[in-house]
Amino acid sequence: MKELELHKAFMLIEPGPVTMISTRGRDGRANVFTLTWITVLDWTPRFALCTGAWNFSYHALKETGECVVNIATADMLDTVLKVGTCSGADTDKFAKFGLTAKDASKVGAPLVGECWAQIECRVVDHIAAHDIFILEGVAAWRNPAHKDKRLLHAIGDGTFTADGEVFHRRAEMGDKLPPGV
Amino acid sequence: MKELELHKAFMLIEPGPVTMISTRGRDGRANVFTLTWITVLDWTPRFALCTGAWNFSYHALKETGECVVNIATADMLDTVLKVGTCSGADTDKFAKFGLTAKDASKVGAPLVGECWAQIECRVVDHIAAHDIFILEGVAAWRNPAHKDKRLLHAIGDGTFTADGEVFHRRAEMGDKLPPGV
Repeated sequence: MKELELHKAFMLIEPGPVTMISTRGRDGRANVFTLTWITVLDWTPRFALCTGAWNFSYHALKETGECVVNIATADMLDTVLKVGTCSGADTDKFAKFGLTAKDASKVGAPLVGECWAQIECRVVDHIAAHDIFILEGVAAWRNPAHKDKRLLHAIGDGTFTADGEVFHRRAEMGDKLPPGV
Repeated sequence: MKELELHKAFMLIEPGPVTMISTRGRDGRANVFTLTWITVLDWTPRFALCTGAWNFSYHALKETGECVVNIATADMLDTVLKVGTCSGADTDKFAKFGLTAKDASKVGAPLVGECWAQIECRVVDHIAAHDIFILEGVAAWRNPAHKDKRLLHAIGDGTFTADGEVFHRRAEMGDKLPPGV
């Protein structure tokens, strides 16, 4: 793992990828769930994550105020589906699906070692009326050895797409780009 | 344009596409801006849109409580960039970029006729502390004749990707899929 500058962490979320969110409850149990309901708030490492009380990890997120946003890639679609279709209430997903729970640097929730990139986050606000958690990234990592960097996108009906054609249009963005990216 | 069932509108936003948001101020002026900072809240046509007072359309959004979320596709990248790098404060973007402002059915903001799909939305809440607008879709449209349906995703540094490989994994999603999609 290589540390990723925090001011670049928004670039992992802005494209709208499928993520896997890992938590660790006060009882020490780690869990991970698949999530696409997340957006950047701006160019800072602050994100709005939407999930409700029906989600097993919701309670760990509320109680500990910590999670890791792990970025899934196209090669991980099988894992994304397995993780997304069972519950941490009755399944140790790390054990069952052979995932590596690596220690994070600043939060108690584990990094999912198999993912291409990970953002350690703290909950800075919870908007209960809309089931939105406001996250602030406190450390970020990427695995330079991870080969398939195509992000996954969920259509919502069981169809997923992977990143395809790439367009480099930096020159046209001018002062609309934040500094340092 | 063909009407899209509202319960399917989340499928336009969940994959994290680049959108163009259109508004019409109380003075009657239409504007459109490029936005990737949006997420579904769940499987309903409700979305969290993040933008602040520095955005010309922010004021129309606050005052009128209406907008249209227009879905951009890869063939529209040039337009996305032009719309995203100037301001409605001094530019009539519809006129300048040859965009068609079509009447919406339920809101005063116009549809961008060139887009593949459009969701007419009303603002149901504004979380000022985080510059988040909660939108509720009230009508949705798609253009069956639109050829390039590859969604665009913004990386944040001037790089964009278009949807590539498609994976059909409906059978594995089971009861995790909402009804009717």
